[in-house]
Formats: sequence, structure tokens, C-alpha cells
Amino acid sequence: MPIPTQSWRGDATGHLDLLDQTLLPTETRVLELTTVEGVWEAIKALRVRGAPAIGVAAAYGVVIGCQTERGGSAERFRARLSEVLDYLATSRPTAVNLFWALDRLRAMANGLQDLAPTALHDRLLEEARAIESEDRAMCAAMAEHGAPLLAGCEGVLTHCNTGALATAGDGTALAVIFAAAKANPLLKVYADETRPLLQGARLTMWELLQRGVDATLICDSMAAWVMKERRVQAVIVGADRIAANGDAANKIGTYGLSVLCKAHSIPFYVAAPSSTFDLTLADGEQIPIEQRRSEEITQGFGKQTAPDNCPVYNPAFDVAPATNITALITERGVIQPVNEASIRRALG
Amino acid sequence: MPIPTQSWRGDATGHLDLLDQTLLPTETRVLELTTVEGVWEAIKALRVRGAPAIGVAAAYGVVIGCQTERGGSAERFRARLSEVLDYLATSRPTAVNLFWALDRLRAMANGLQDLAPTALHDRLLEEARAIESEDRAMCAAMAEHGAPLLAGCEGVLTHCNTGALATAGDGTALAVIFAAAKANPLLKVYADETRPLLQGARLTMWELLQRGVDATLICDSMAAWVMKERRVQAVIVGADRIAANGDAANKIGTYGLSVLCKAHSIPFYVAAPSSTFDLTLADGEQIPIEQRRSEEITQGFGKQTAPDNCPVYNPAFDVAPATNITALITERGVIQPVNEASIRRALG
Repeated sequence: MPIPTQSWRGDATGHLDLLDQTLLPTETRVLELTTVEGVWEAIKALRVRGAPAIGVAAAYGVVIGCQTERGGSAERFRARLSEVLDYLATSRPTAVNLFWALDRLRAMANGLQDLAPTALHDRLLEEARAIESEDRAMCAAMAEHGAPLLAGCEGVLTHCNTGALATAGDGTALAVIFAAAKANPLLKVYADETRPLLQGARLTMWELLQRGVDATLICDSMAAWVMKERRVQAVIVGADRIAANGDAANKIGTYGLSVLCKAHSIPFYVAAPSSTFDLTLADGEQIPIEQRRSEEITQGFGKQTAPDNCPVYNPAFDVAPATNITALITERGVIQPVNEASIRRALG
Repeated sequence: MPIPTQSWRGDATGHLDLLDQTLLPTETRVLELTTVEGVWEAIKALRVRGAPAIGVAAAYGVVIGCQTERGGSAERFRARLSEVLDYLATSRPTAVNLFWALDRLRAMANGLQDLAPTALHDRLLEEARAIESEDRAMCAAMAEHGAPLLAGCEGVLTHCNTGALATAGDGTALAVIFAAAKANPLLKVYADETRPLLQGARLTMWELLQRGVDATLICDSMAAWVMKERRVQAVIVGADRIAANGDAANKIGTYGLSVLCKAHSIPFYVAAPSSTFDLTLADGEQIPIEQRRSEEITQGFGKQTAPDNCPVYNPAFDVAPATNITALITERGVIQPVNEASIRRALG
């Protein structure tokens, strides 16, 4: 059994076991989080990362934070709840799923004004569990819809980390790979190391090896050669944001993979839950590309690997055009061909 | 003035100043090599690297090694010469240029059996200087032939290190870039960091910044996006070996760049001296691809970045097919279109 990313232990007076991802891949340490400050610090310090996983951790953090007033008055409990929600929101101000999860708990509590502290606290745990299990179900649905697409493959390539470490379930693109590898244990999985932050080397390879999948690490620059050598018959990646026309923003390197797939007549799949789609954006041109610190590239491995004051271009994401995407895999099914009409139809 | 890669100081009793490349890009230290053991160690420990640069260092190493018998008998001098040639050949047994340079000195000495030690020693220095200046002239000729191809470019991308650090002159592909940047100081140069060994980040960026070229470092996975954003209008790389039909083996990542160039309608140039061509090989399929240690990827820079016992695929080279190469740039001129007929015509 793989080590779970996070697990709630006990009833509303329990605690959160959380795998410290900053120590991967060389050390697996599970933190026993019993205070809201501990959860805040774990999110802040990226001990838990990946949008859905952060949302789940924050929701359990609310439950932990309210434990101090479980036996208190309704007024004190609600004051504490409000304080805890505001506090956790400061842990990672750019994480959309963090706010989404906290707002969901806030709205639920606001709708239950008559509930006593103990009952409300129990309901908060229920809602946190619901957030977790809904995400797990979404991962499972993507895996189920996507795995048949990889049925004929001897090898498949993926990029960055889109697995259990980033979600409450098995992940998005990596969940599809896990399901395909379960159906075909001979499947060979190639993982790009994914510079600059090496999520592929550090996290995806760790997940794949934990589960006994036949996995091989390559540098990003080797992906084209792996295609040329016919080692892979499909590429599957996740997405951070998908526009109405199907253009998909994802970790830098994704665009290049999509072009290389087209040139090698290899299908290129994007797996993402429907919450990733932003239908207010007509196309990928409107997706802003975050520029990140140059040190990620120049001092990425604990050692300076470029000259002092080296100019760097470090876009965190790029955009694979819909025309390069063979199919989108969502929890609601496979969207193919990838265009605005079929996306709107699938998302209702 | 950039710091020279290596410079002979004085007459045949002089010494070799050699830039220790293992300390780049954070430290520039010039070693004063006064013993053949010092030259051997510098080649062995990769303080000097790049096929032509190794050949030059070895040739000067022969001169240094024979200094002990400059005043000795002809017999002792020739015995010492033989010993020194054999010894230097053990420094890096896979470096073809090393053997080529040593064989050239050996053949010259064998052809001058009547020469006295002092005169022969002076001739060895002359020959070492000739090896250096011939390579410098080759670099200059490539730069002259290639620079006009980049005349209309706002930006150009390169991969790995093909500069002054690897040759006796300004390099191959990088020499073309230096010449183009001299003609157009607004030229923007993008350098792939070139995983796994980061020659682009460590060496190419150091050379470009030393010369005041407007240069920017990117990760290999960003090259496609840089093309998509129209930041570059050409890509130019070196080559390790070129087959009769023009297929060119070069640092891993080169093949992918050639495919991406084609997809973006960007010219893809390969700059290499005529000695790089191996007309006994019909095409790139016959070029063996060296597989290298997994640690280069998993523990690249002082830190383990992948799980223990992580399976790795680490080809050192790949092959850009002739059909993806817009032109080959050699010291004898530009070969275009790239096919066997035009290559044989150009190489005589």
C-alpha cells in the first residue's frame, strides 16, 4: 500500500496525519498535525501541495482549529471558527482551492446558525470529509474514463506531478496511468524530471515506484528522443487551467510535448477535473503566464549552476493549443474532439 | 577581453596557462601547468574539455613533458617523448582528438630522425602551436560563413557548449553566434541549460556574459515556448558526428529542437568542422548512442533529486535527421541543402 498523502484520524477531536512532501524522495516522514498552526505551517512550507490536496488539508485544519472551543459557548465557537478560517487563508494566498474549501465550510456554518458547537464541529468534519471524498471520486472517474485510451500502449510519458500527492485520490493524469498500469502491468511509464522544480523526478517517480509501476526517469530534453525511438505511444499530462476552446495551460514543457506528439503522430491527452475549465476565457491567449524567480533555475540543486547575475527567463506554465490535444479527460467523461462545442456539451 | 581557455607562455621551456573549467561558472582560476602530470590531471579531471581544446592541451603537454630531456641525448629525448605520448594517451581514453593530436606529434618526430633534442623540442612546440592555430582558423571560418545566416534574427537559441571553452578559437556554433552578435549587438541569445550536465548554464552562459552578449538562460523544456513566442528566429547547435547523408549526432535534446524548429518554421543550423563528418556512415542510424550513468540525472548537483534506485534512461546524444537541418556550417562553407551529394561536394 502506498503511503497516503494525508489521513484524518478519529472523530472531530482527532488529528491529521500528513506526509511531509518537502522531504521526498529521500525521506518519508508523516507529521501528526494536532494544531491549526501546524496545518498552516504545512501548507505555507509546501509540506502539502497540489490544489485539491491543499483544499483538503485546510478543511481538516479548520476542524482542528475549532477543537479548542468544542466545549465552549456558541458565540465563542463561531468566533473561533471565523478566526481559524481567516488564519488559514493567509497560509498560501495564491491557492484558489484553499479559499474554495474555506468558503465552503464558512457557508455551511452560516447556513446552520441554530446548531450547537459540538454538533456544528461534527458537521465541519463531515464537510471536510466530503471535500476529500468528492475529490477522490473525481480522480477515480478520470482514471476510469482515461485508462481505456492507454489500453494499446507499451509505453506512456508524463510530465510534472499530477498524482496522489497533489489530490485526495490517485490524481488526475497520474491516476489514469495508475489505472492503465493496473490493467496492463507491462506498461512502461516515462516521467520527465520537469525542470526547474523537478516534480517529476522527486514526486512522480516516487509515486510510481511506491506502487510498483515500471517507471523510468528522463530529462525533459529526452522526451523527443523517447518518442522517436517509439518507446511511448501516448503522452498524458494534467492542466492548471483550460480555456473555453480547449487550450490548456500546464507546467512549462507541456506545449513542447504537445508539438512533439503531433510531429510523431502520438496522441496527447490532458486529464483535469471540470473545475479546471474557465469558460470565461475564449482561448489560451487570455491565460496569464506566471514568471518565477531566476534562482529556481540558477540554484536549483543546492548549488549555483549558472554565472552570478545570470539573466533568466522562467515561465512557470505554457499553453498547449486545443489543436494539439487528442482528448480531454474529465470526471464527466472524455471530450473529443477538443473544441468549444464539445466542451460546453460535456460540462453542461 | 574574455579569459582564454588556455595559452602557452614563452618558448619550448615555457608553460601552459589553463582555465580550470570545473570551477566555472562561480570561480575563474587559471592553472599554471609546468609538469606533464599536471596536464594529464587537467585532462583527466575535465578541467579542460571539448574535443579540440583537449587536443591542444595534450600537444602542449608533450612539449612540457619533454622539457626534462631538452638538454639530454637524442636517445634519451626520444625515449622521454615516447613515454610522454603514451602517458598522455591514458588521460581520457575516449577522446578522439587527444589521440589525433598525440599521433600528429609522434608522426612529425618520427619523420625528423636527424634532429637534435633542442631543435626537435622547438619543432614540437611549433606543431602544438600549429594544432592550436589551425583550430582557431577553423572556428573563425565557421563564424564567417555562419554569421550571415543569422543576420535577420532578433533572437537565436543554442544548446550545450560549443564555444571558446571547447576549442582553440571561438568555438563552432557559439563562434557563429559571437560573430552574429558582433554584427548585431541587439541580438538576443537564449541558451538551454542542457540537462543533465548543464553545460549551457555553466559554460555557455559564462562565455556569453564574459563577452557582453545579451544572453538569457532557459530550461530545456522552455525552448518550444520561446519559439512559440517568436523570441528566436533561428536555432544553432554543434555536432559530435555527422553521417554521409547529413544526419547529425549531438548532445541529447538536439533532435527535439530540430523537430520543434520544423514545426515552427524556424531554421535549424548545425555548425561543425569537416573533421566531424564520418562519410563511412551512411546515415544517423549507424551512429552509436552512448548511455551514461544514472547519477548524472538523479544526483546532478550535490543533492539527490530522485528516489533511491530510481530507474533512469540517460542517452548522452541523439541524432537530428538531415531533413530537419536547414544548413550545415563548416570551415569550408555552408552546405545547403543538406544531403549526401552536397556534403561530398563541399568536403571534396
